[in-house]
Amino acid sequence: MKHHIDFEPIGRRVDVDDDTTILDAARAGGVELMSVCGGVGTCYECKVRVAKGNVTPVTDIEQDALTADDLAQGFRLGCQCAPIGDVKIDIPAESLSTPQRLQVEGQGAEVELDPVAKIFDVEIPPPSLHDLRSDASRLIESIQCDHAAISLVLLSDLSSTLRRLNWRARVIARGDEVIAILPQDQSVLGLAVDIGTTKVAGYLVDLQTGETRAKAGVMNPQIGYGEDVISRIHYANTHKHGRETLQEKIVEGLNQLVDDLCSLANCSRDQIVESVIVGNTVIHHLFAGLPVEQLGEAPYVPAISEALEFRAKEIGLRLAPGAYVFLPPNIAGYVGADHVSMALASGIGETAQTVIGLDIGTNTEISLAHQGRVICCSCPSGPAFEGAHIQDGMRAAPGAIERVQIRGGVIQVHTIADQAAVGMCGSGILDAIAELINVGALDSRGGMKMDHPLTRQREKSKEVVLVDAQHSGHGRDVVITRKDINEIQLAKGAIRAGVEILLKVAGIGSGELDRFIVAGAFGTYLDLESAIRAGMFLDLPRDRFRQIGNAAGSGARRMLVSKNQRAAASDLARRMEYVELTVHPDFEKVFVKGMMF
Amino acid sequence: MKHHIDFEPIGRRVDVDDDTTILDAARAGGVELMSVCGGVGTCYECKVRVAKGNVTPVTDIEQDALTADDLAQGFRLGCQCAPIGDVKIDIPAESLSTPQRLQVEGQGAEVELDPVAKIFDVEIPPPSLHDLRSDASRLIESIQCDHAAISLVLLSDLSSTLRRLNWRARVIARGDEVIAILPQDQSVLGLAVDIGTTKVAGYLVDLQTGETRAKAGVMNPQIGYGEDVISRIHYANTHKHGRETLQEKIVEGLNQLVDDLCSLANCSRDQIVESVIVGNTVIHHLFAGLPVEQLGEAPYVPAISEALEFRAKEIGLRLAPGAYVFLPPNIAGYVGADHVSMALASGIGETAQTVIGLDIGTNTEISLAHQGRVICCSCPSGPAFEGAHIQDGMRAAPGAIERVQIRGGVIQVHTIADQAAVGMCGSGILDAIAELINVGALDSRGGMKMDHPLTRQREKSKEVVLVDAQHSGHGRDVVITRKDINEIQLAKGAIRAGVEILLKVAGIGSGELDRFIVAGAFGTYLDLESAIRAGMFLDLPRDRFRQIGNAAGSGARRMLVSKNQRAAASDLARRMEYVELTVHPDFEKVFVKGMMF
Repeated sequence: MKHHIDFEPIGRRVDVDDDTTILDAARAGGVELMSVCGGVGTCYECKVRVAKGNVTPVTDIEQDALTADDLAQGFRLGCQCAPIGDVKIDIPAESLSTPQRLQVEGQGAEVELDPVAKIFDVEIPPPSLHDLRSDASRLIESIQCDHAAISLVLLSDLSSTLRRLNWRARVIARGDEVIAILPQDQSVLGLAVDIGTTKVAGYLVDLQTGETRAKAGVMNPQIGYGEDVISRIHYANTHKHGRETLQEKIVEGLNQLVDDLCSLANCSRDQIVESVIVGNTVIHHLFAGLPVEQLGEAPYVPAISEALEFRAKEIGLRLAPGAYVFLPPNIAGYVGADHVSMALASGIGETAQTVIGLDIGTNTEISLAHQGRVICCSCPSGPAFEGAHIQDGMRAAPGAIERVQIRGGVIQVHTIADQAAVGMCGSGILDAIAELINVGALDSRGGMKMDHPLTRQREKSKEVVLVDAQHSGHGRDVVITRKDINEIQLAKGAIRAGVEILLKVAGIGSGELDRFIVAGAFGTYLDLESAIRAGMFLDLPRDRFRQIGNAAGSGARRMLVSKNQRAAASDLARRMEYVELTVHPDFEKVFVKGMMF
Repeated sequence: MKHHIDFEPIGRRVDVDDDTTILDAARAGGVELMSVCGGVGTCYECKVRVAKGNVTPVTDIEQDALTADDLAQGFRLGCQCAPIGDVKIDIPAESLSTPQRLQVEGQGAEVELDPVAKIFDVEIPPPSLHDLRSDASRLIESIQCDHAAISLVLLSDLSSTLRRLNWRARVIARGDEVIAILPQDQSVLGLAVDIGTTKVAGYLVDLQTGETRAKAGVMNPQIGYGEDVISRIHYANTHKHGRETLQEKIVEGLNQLVDDLCSLANCSRDQIVESVIVGNTVIHHLFAGLPVEQLGEAPYVPAISEALEFRAKEIGLRLAPGAYVFLPPNIAGYVGADHVSMALASGIGETAQTVIGLDIGTNTEISLAHQGRVICCSCPSGPAFEGAHIQDGMRAAPGAIERVQIRGGVIQVHTIADQAAVGMCGSGILDAIAELINVGALDSRGGMKMDHPLTRQREKSKEVVLVDAQHSGHGRDVVITRKDINEIQLAKGAIRAGVEILLKVAGIGSGELDRFIVAGAFGTYLDLESAIRAGMFLDLPRDRFRQIGNAAGSGARRMLVSKNQRAAASDLARRMEYVELTVHPDFEKVFVKGMMF
């Protein structure tokens, strides 16, 4: 007998026979449900929630894997149950493999729609000998906004546009300025972008409905000029037109991203009338063409920390000709608009609770909300979690190991898109380290115990083979080395130190934390247990953690559709207190301790 | 015995012996006092006023030349009197030859200084570990303007500029936007430009004192693409990138003009933070890059009639990087911002009198103020008065005949800079026609009476020789032909028709006019008697006429230094009622009549 399975939030329906497990059904339907053990019931990764309908009874394996609370809420393991009749299955973000998580994260920015761009559908009387008003006058009077001005870039095509549209137009005004004139059947879109040091995420949002019409990512093309922001500042300072080159590169990247988004949403860039772009302070400055010299020297002050807006055209970003770019405020040289945006989206600015929020990237920014204060800092965590500086590291792409388990002395891996392994992305590296600690292959200083069966010495390198050459995608072993582990120690030590110093500044202990929010792509895909086991995160009760996806991007989308949210971001930025970690007397001690396992 | 003669408003002192006439003294001192007869007392052009001191007694020639009123006010002929002791001589604008008139016209825009750009001299605390405000924040807080923003073009150099100036700066803000940062010892300048169809006049004004620091003119480089605005519209419509080409040309011309002005005033373009640019509607549109197709077809509506402002940089005009361009409102397709500016400067908008104001150019705009109404129209007078379409026509440059008299059957001419004649400029042509009418060489339809001794037939052309080949600067006769006279008839007929139609629309007769104001370079240099004799102007009592120079340029300077004047211009533009001449039922009749002598 056939049953329907509706997978949410993916929104995909799969029809299956009796006795087909949810995991098999997911695979058959192209739903990338996580599984490391291959469905034998040892990895517990394929956790799903039965939202509607009935499935086969709970197995012994599920009794071990799931808490009573989980079971009460309908959680099951996908490999252990099969539908009895039609069911609806809800897949938590952490049980989805990377590509589909990218599709569903950051949904539902629930803000009241109040975009800076206002939309008017008008029918304009054409000129005649009895009505000699200028084209601009008749347009402005049609939207009943006497003080409106029309920007030069629009005026240059205004007369032909109005005649081509036969005097029926959708007019978009921003404050007192008319910024676009579209046919009445075209939707009005906004662009939200989170420019990371390594990756760029873009969202196309319908400004009338708030709906996200398309999402896409590109690599930050500035990578070729320096992996981290310090090396990009150096490039800008030491090369002729260095700053201009870095600006051109990122603008080119965004133009490419806009192309991709427009293809996905089947629209034109002329429909994109507004954009909100977030990034760290160095990225922000390089994008806007601002000086970065002073960000490379103490006391590391930004050229500007206030919100900034200008025409997209001014920097060569190709949206609608009259479109604007809004850059939210930043806090300090190393706490940027992206963190303000994340703090906005995660509610850190408004909470009455004591909350840590962190956004892991090449630079990791952390905020602590406690009794009305919001204290923040910046940790140079480096690009190791993006796969850089790791011998077999790679970004989260098909063939990347994203989960590692060691069961009975055997290493099991799960790769993105179930392709043969060719490397490891951040969450895989972190898993590998946590599992190697668990099985006693690593000591507390990160050293490999060479008497452990999983370790080996090869030439000068101590290493562990995760996937051997016979099973890999490129015919070589995929390994994790002592040096890789050291890179991760530096990164996670910096993050842990940042958290510890913020707690010290606030004068509280970790037990007082109500919530520990982890944002960013890597922060969302990482295995929480691994992060805690590796000492990167505090060992708090698990229900205090929230992995919230690209919150900086969500915040950007909020500001895209809401003037109030822009004001809230500026207010939040003014309130946030910046702590310079490196001058804190305890920093070095805490950092060294943080590197330990 | 030596005497000092101080010539005003030129401001030049000349020392002379007894018995040296004022005219000779002027020539010796390089003061270009007008004289057609060469000092024999027949042309009456060297009229001056003795403002201080004593001169030799009034001669019989002066008794004939001057009214009792003139004599009572101290007016004399420069060729007829010599100083007795030190004197101060005031030269009326009409007695100065063109180049020096250009220097002195349009002085003294007496408006209260209230420029849109505000100036703050500040000392800014530099950043430190205890003061981590961004460079922009510390700048904005120093000018105590919390809502100020800094434009992107400034931000890109802000950090280095503040450090280079050692944190002491002259900050220029425009509304809530910081638009320039200068050293404290540099003056802050504005640019006013009147772009004519043929000629461009520019003024550099100190925004702190209101003083005009430099004046210069260039030809409008668009001339190569059409002599009048209609042919330029045609060019823009029929050539690929035609509109862009015409914009580039005029912007290039202005950049050249700014170079010249900066050399004259010994300053840099970075000091020019604001500009007001006026021109007719087609010129305005082409300058701003706006569409002109609809200006070429009935009902000839502008793309925009409201005041317009944008960054100079947006169109490639090189001033200070953050400088703005302000374009005052226009009225209709053929009554532009230049006429609004002229109406503003001449007080037409505010007068309780009945006043005609006209600005003669390739296109002539006329306004009539009567009982609170201001009615305006546009006449296609063509470029004949600029010397175009005239066989020996030329612009007002050295060697151009600018005055013509016929005494005892002999033609006498005065050329600009007293150089041998090479052609005629507009005022010379008009004089020649008036004098030929006086001596009966022309009939009322403009035909040459071939039995008159001054006329001759040469090949197909009927003509009058003004200067023969032996005395000319290029070895050829300088002549005025029947065809030239016809060109002038068309031009003056159009102007006269415009005046007559406005009087008809207002329902008044010419006798009710309190004032007849003539603006524009040609309008100022022309001989009033000649213009009346030729039937271009109404035959009103002479004291009702005012020749006020480049009033459009004066108005632009007023708007440059005063926000109130900008508001007044917008108000005036809204009030001005446009009359389309060509659809008036009496137009053709009045025009044909206006062509007669």
